[in-house]
Amino acid sequence: MVERLRVTEEDSMRVAEDDLREVARAIFLKCGVPDEDAERATDVLVTSDLRGVESHGVSNSLRGYVQGFKEDEINPAPQWKILRETPSTANIDSDRGLGIVVGPKAMEIAIEKARNVGVGVVTIRNSRHLGMISYHAMMALEHDMIGMSMSSCPANVNPTFGAEARFGTNPLALAAPGDRETPFVFDAAMSIVPANKLVLARRLGVKLLPGWVADEDGTPLMHEVDAPPQGPDGIPMANILPLGSTVDLGSHKGYGLMAVVDILGGILSGGGYGLVPGRPNFNHYVAAYDIEAFMDTAEFKSTMDEWLHALRTTRPAPGHDRVIYPGLMEAETVENRRANGIPLHVEVIEWFRSTCSRMGIPFNLA
Amino acid sequence: MVERLRVTEEDSMRVAEDDLREVARAIFLKCGVPDEDAERATDVLVTSDLRGVESHGVSNSLRGYVQGFKEDEINPAPQWKILRETPSTANIDSDRGLGIVVGPKAMEIAIEKARNVGVGVVTIRNSRHLGMISYHAMMALEHDMIGMSMSSCPANVNPTFGAEARFGTNPLALAAPGDRETPFVFDAAMSIVPANKLVLARRLGVKLLPGWVADEDGTPLMHEVDAPPQGPDGIPMANILPLGSTVDLGSHKGYGLMAVVDILGGILSGGGYGLVPGRPNFNHYVAAYDIEAFMDTAEFKSTMDEWLHALRTTRPAPGHDRVIYPGLMEAETVENRRANGIPLHVEVIEWFRSTCSRMGIPFNLA
Repeated sequence: MVERLRVTEEDSMRVAEDDLREVARAIFLKCGVPDEDAERATDVLVTSDLRGVESHGVSNSLRGYVQGFKEDEINPAPQWKILRETPSTANIDSDRGLGIVVGPKAMEIAIEKARNVGVGVVTIRNSRHLGMISYHAMMALEHDMIGMSMSSCPANVNPTFGAEARFGTNPLALAAPGDRETPFVFDAAMSIVPANKLVLARRLGVKLLPGWVADEDGTPLMHEVDAPPQGPDGIPMANILPLGSTVDLGSHKGYGLMAVVDILGGILSGGGYGLVPGRPNFNHYVAAYDIEAFMDTAEFKSTMDEWLHALRTTRPAPGHDRVIYPGLMEAETVENRRANGIPLHVEVIEWFRSTCSRMGIPFNLA
Repeated sequence: MVERLRVTEEDSMRVAEDDLREVARAIFLKCGVPDEDAERATDVLVTSDLRGVESHGVSNSLRGYVQGFKEDEINPAPQWKILRETPSTANIDSDRGLGIVVGPKAMEIAIEKARNVGVGVVTIRNSRHLGMISYHAMMALEHDMIGMSMSSCPANVNPTFGAEARFGTNPLALAAPGDRETPFVFDAAMSIVPANKLVLARRLGVKLLPGWVADEDGTPLMHEVDAPPQGPDGIPMANILPLGSTVDLGSHKGYGLMAVVDILGGILSGGGYGLVPGRPNFNHYVAAYDIEAFMDTAEFKSTMDEWLHALRTTRPAPGHDRVIYPGLMEAETVENRRANGIPLHVEVIEWFRSTCSRMGIPFNLA
C-alpha cells in the first residue's frame, strides 16, 4: 500500500537534489526567513524527500509554510527563547517559529545537556510544524547519542469509542546508531496514518484503506473510501483513527500513545494539548541520551549491529522478499535519489513554477 | 473483547485484598525473598489485580515466579548494584532479581535524579519480569513527576513480513498526574496483545481474535483461532503479531515501537536485546520527569484536568456509552475490588491451596 502512495514515473519528473535545495532556500529567503534558518529549513525538507518521505517533503509542506508566512500565522524570523532550564532540561518559547527551524536548535541544546549530565530533554511551546520529526532525532547520531522527538499537533484523530477528534496525529521518532549497519530510525504518527498521507492520496486519486478513518459518527470504516478534501486550514476533512483502528485490533494502544505524545510534547511544554482551541498549536519534545552515560559506546554499537543484522535477515513470510528495519529502506532511497534525482509530482513542479514567477526567483526545475 | 478475557462470577471466587496480600507475601518469604522486598513484590502483584490487570496479577505471575525461584532462574535475594552513573542517569545490574523488586528501587533512583537535575533515567540489565510495568511509572505521581517505564522481554513476536519471533511484547507505560481528575496511566504491550493474554484465553477457553497471531510461516491470521498451549518455559507457543497486525493497518509502527523498547530498555542497559540467546533475559528502563523543571506544576496539573475532562466527555460513537482514558477504568476497578473483593479463577484458588499446603503456609482464601 505504501507503494500506492508513491508518485509514479508518468506523473512525475526527477529533479536534482541541489536544484531542489536552491529553489526551496530562495523561497524561504523571500518569505523573510534569515539565511542560516533558511538553510536549515531547506535541509529538513530536502532530507525528507531524499528519504522517500514525500508526505513531509517540499511537495506537501513547503506550500503550506509559504501560505502560513503570508497569512502571518508563522513567524519567519522568530525570537525564540529559553523560559526555564535545569542541568538536564529546558523549555523553549518558539515565538510562532517553524519547528523545522527551532527544533534543530532545541536538539542542539538537548545534546549539550546530555553531554554534560547524561540526558537532555527540551520541550517547545508556541511553535509550528516540526516537519519529518526524525530529522531532529537523527541529529544525535553523529554525537554517539540516541535521539528522540515527538510533536503534539492540532486535533484530527478520534480516540477509541469517540465521535470527535481529540488528538493530532502526534508522531514519535527515535534514532540510534549502529557501527557498520545503517542507523535505526523510527518515525511514525501514532494515528493509523499521518494527515499528509490523506492529502497525498487525494492528489494521486487513490482510495483510503480499511481502518484509516471513521464515519462522521465515529464508527471505524473497515472498507475502502474516497480520500477526503482538505478544509480551509489545509487539514483533511476526516476523522482519522488511532493506530490499531478498532479496539479489537488495539486502537486503545494507539489512542494511549497519541496521549503520551500530547503530555510530553504538548502539556509539558506549557503550550497545551493539540485540542486547545485557537489553532495552530504545535508543541514539541526533543531528547538526547548520551550512550556513554549508560555503558561503553563501542559495545552498544556492536550490539546494535548484531541486532539490526538479525532483524534484516529474519526469514520472510510468504509473499515478501525480506524483512526491513526502520530507517533501512529510507537510507536506500537516499542513495537512489542522490544518484537518479528526486521524483516530484507534475502538480508540485507547477506550484514551484508559478511561485518562482510570482516571487521573481529563477525557476530551475525543468 | 477485553470483557471476554475477564473471569466470570461462575468460575471465580472473590477474595479480600488483605488476605491476598498476606498469602502472597508469605509465599515470597518462603521462597527466600527478604522481608522488605516481599512486601514490595506483593504490592506490585496485588495492585495489578486491584486494577483489573489479572494478566499480570497473582493468578498469572506468582506461580511463574515460584517456579523460577525453585529452578534457581530467579535470584530471590539479589545483590543488585549500580554499574555506572551520571547526574541524570544510572545503569543497574539486577543480579537476576525480579523486576518487581529491583524496578521500584531503580525508580526511586530516577526520581531522586529528576529532583536534582530535572530528569532521571535508569536502565536495568540482567533482570527478570517487571510485572505490570505501570506500577513503576506510577511511583512518580506522588512526587509531582511524570513516570515512564519499559521492558525488553524474551522474543515471541514477529516483525512485519517476518516468519520468526524477534521481539518480546515489550510494554511501555507512562503515568502523569492531574489535579482532581484520576491520573493518566497508560500501560500496553507494543505487540497486539501481551503474551499473558494468550495464557488467560487458554485458561478461559476462549478463542484469539483475528489479527493476534501469525501462522507458522509468518502470515497474519485474520480469523479467530484457538489459544495456543504454553511451552516448557511458560511462554505461549505462538507467533504474536505487532500492534497493527498487518502492514496495511500499521504493523510496521508496532514493530518500530517494539524495537524502540528493545533499544532503550534492552540494548542501552548493556543486557542485550530480547532475542539474545540464553533466556531468560529481561532488561528494563525507568524514567522520571520533574514537572517543575519544565513549567509550573500547578499549571501542568490544571491543564491535565482540562484535557482529561475533555477526553472522558468526548461524544461517544454509536454502541458505546462513553469514552475513557488510560487509567480511568483501572481506578474504578480498584474502588470496586477494594469494596467487593478481587475475583480469582477457581483454578488459581486451587494453586494457592496446594502451594500453601506444600509450603506449610495457612491457606486463607476460602
